[in-house]
Amino acid sequence: MAKEMKVTPWEVSGHIDYEKLVKSFGTQHVTPQLLRRIEKAAGELHFMLRRKIFFSHRDMDWILDKAEKGEKFVLYTGRGPSGDTHIGHIMPWIFCKWLQDKFDTELYFQLTDDEKFLHSDLSLEETNRLAYENALDVIALGFDPEKTFLFVDTDYGKTMYKIAVQVAKHVTFSTAKAVFGFENSTNIGMAFYPAMQAATAFLPSVLKGKKIPVLIPAAIDQDPYWRVTRDVAEKLGYYKPAAIHNTFLPGLQGPDSKMSASKPDSAIFTTDNPRDARKKIMKAFSGGAGTLAEHRKHGGNPDVDTSYQYLYNVFEEDDEKIKEIRNAYKSGAMSAGEIKEILAKKVERFLKEHQERRERAKHRIDRFMLKD
Amino acid sequence: MAKEMKVTPWEVSGHIDYEKLVKSFGTQHVTPQLLRRIEKAAGELHFMLRRKIFFSHRDMDWILDKAEKGEKFVLYTGRGPSGDTHIGHIMPWIFCKWLQDKFDTELYFQLTDDEKFLHSDLSLEETNRLAYENALDVIALGFDPEKTFLFVDTDYGKTMYKIAVQVAKHVTFSTAKAVFGFENSTNIGMAFYPAMQAATAFLPSVLKGKKIPVLIPAAIDQDPYWRVTRDVAEKLGYYKPAAIHNTFLPGLQGPDSKMSASKPDSAIFTTDNPRDARKKIMKAFSGGAGTLAEHRKHGGNPDVDTSYQYLYNVFEEDDEKIKEIRNAYKSGAMSAGEIKEILAKKVERFLKEHQERRERAKHRIDRFMLKD
Repeated sequence: MAKEMKVTPWEVSGHIDYEKLVKSFGTQHVTPQLLRRIEKAAGELHFMLRRKIFFSHRDMDWILDKAEKGEKFVLYTGRGPSGDTHIGHIMPWIFCKWLQDKFDTELYFQLTDDEKFLHSDLSLEETNRLAYENALDVIALGFDPEKTFLFVDTDYGKTMYKIAVQVAKHVTFSTAKAVFGFENSTNIGMAFYPAMQAATAFLPSVLKGKKIPVLIPAAIDQDPYWRVTRDVAEKLGYYKPAAIHNTFLPGLQGPDSKMSASKPDSAIFTTDNPRDARKKIMKAFSGGAGTLAEHRKHGGNPDVDTSYQYLYNVFEEDDEKIKEIRNAYKSGAMSAGEIKEILAKKVERFLKEHQERRERAKHRIDRFMLKD
Repeated sequence: MAKEMKVTPWEVSGHIDYEKLVKSFGTQHVTPQLLRRIEKAAGELHFMLRRKIFFSHRDMDWILDKAEKGEKFVLYTGRGPSGDTHIGHIMPWIFCKWLQDKFDTELYFQLTDDEKFLHSDLSLEETNRLAYENALDVIALGFDPEKTFLFVDTDYGKTMYKIAVQVAKHVTFSTAKAVFGFENSTNIGMAFYPAMQAATAFLPSVLKGKKIPVLIPAAIDQDPYWRVTRDVAEKLGYYKPAAIHNTFLPGLQGPDSKMSASKPDSAIFTTDNPRDARKKIMKAFSGGAGTLAEHRKHGGNPDVDTSYQYLYNVFEEDDEKIKEIRNAYKSGAMSAGEIKEILAKKVERFLKEHQERRERAKHRIDRFMLKD
């Protein structure tokens, strides 16, 4: 029997039933009609939309209403700096970059060193250091420095705390217990933290002195924060933020495996040596049949194959090409080794280029950071 | 039957049994031996010590150990800006001024606009405004601008939040429930707030980059904060702060009455027109007998007389004079009107001078404020 699904901002485990998440979280499906509207507004559809990697949303249609009227919206996403950045983390960031390009929008990017300090054995010094490391990965993706604002919670604490206390006044510990599963043994920093994450949805309005629509692209596990944020938004005189949710990239050990900074072989990190990344891919869980002869006869299963999943979710944007790979792998014409080779080449090239951009980002980081 | 005593940082009501508080809070009495040590170190004893207005402490003897070895300690006190400053508020500040003069110590003064916003119907804008109003009263008392550091929580939020999350990681909601009486219906801002108040005890060490002994003079209702602060101090590498606790000044309506910004007649505020303050005193609860003839015969009761209490606690420092007043009032030689007149004159003079200094403080406030 599959392990029971658990999806919270701090733990994702078991087999993920996305249909069930849409129902239990009370979000909306990304429908063909919605996709047509996005396509019309953007001029094209990002592959993560075409493939329903962004599968669920809250009020995305309202964001499009605003966009169609020529009203600006902004993007908000973030990262909990508990370790190095891996490929799963950058999925919503890649999507944000596309949204920024297509809709000429600002991005507010929160690095939650406070949260990761409060919810781990790491020191605040360490999560703060990791926040700036992770920021380099964001910048390396090519965001516009004029329209992209990154901040680290504790280094933007004056601005953030002031907004967060206003959120916090409207959120009881009961609510936080119900939404996040907090217990009496939860530390009071974690109890407060949802207010800090909610605060970012209101930050653009505070900085600009007027109500700004906000769209939050992020993995579905973050949705509990947006529920709380949306509950308090109008009480504070802001719009409810919209959200669009992506699925999770599986770990390298297979469909229900987890990527973890503490297990280097579970994920490809943006700082991996490209040759090491290749080795990880070669060892990764495969959907191929046991022997090459069997594989040629019965074919492989792309739906559980790590390499196929990484190509589908991140590294092969071209729908025709991914279809060809799928068919060839399924039929047995493409071996497990061959599909791994395709991914390895793409990952090696990505890492090489990303790491060069990441190195250059070290000299440009100040242009992106908001600080008190 | 007297109303049951309640002493929390947010509510003080009923008849206060200070002996019981020392036991239930687990603090130490200010003993004659301790007073002798303070007198030796300071060269004299402040009247609030001679009269046991500062009646209880934690580790005051350890502060004296440090002082005797020539090691510097600093002072920490504060104010929750929920309204104008009244005479009860300034009692520990007057004592701090004496300590600063005698021990050449720095004072860190926290203005908790976040707390008062989170625990009232006031807006953050309003509690922030009141914080700067209250700051003028602190400055007007004559503190050394080179050694006195005031800050408003939300305007020093970057520095404070960074320390507070480190405190918060070690305080569970269970602990906060037990110490402060929080409930599940408590908002998550209040749940976190004790970490902000604890943080100030570590601020001097953070700013100076070394462990600094801290003494906190404050009314006894604030002691729950210091219990939590002391519990986490050593885990974070700081000294446990010492504390010295004062009794409460009664409201103008009598011994168990409360001073409240929402009831102007309940207290003398530092911003009261001196003539209005005189009128309040004339209407205040008296310990005198019903008629003047009865008073002359039976005498008055200074222990419940508001005017006597205000003289004893704040306005008549001279032990000989206060003894004379007590005896004359008790014997009936001094009438209720006469004792009120003594107080009214002193209060009028204090307010006039304080308000002049308070006006001048408006031009000097920047020299005192810590901001991010």
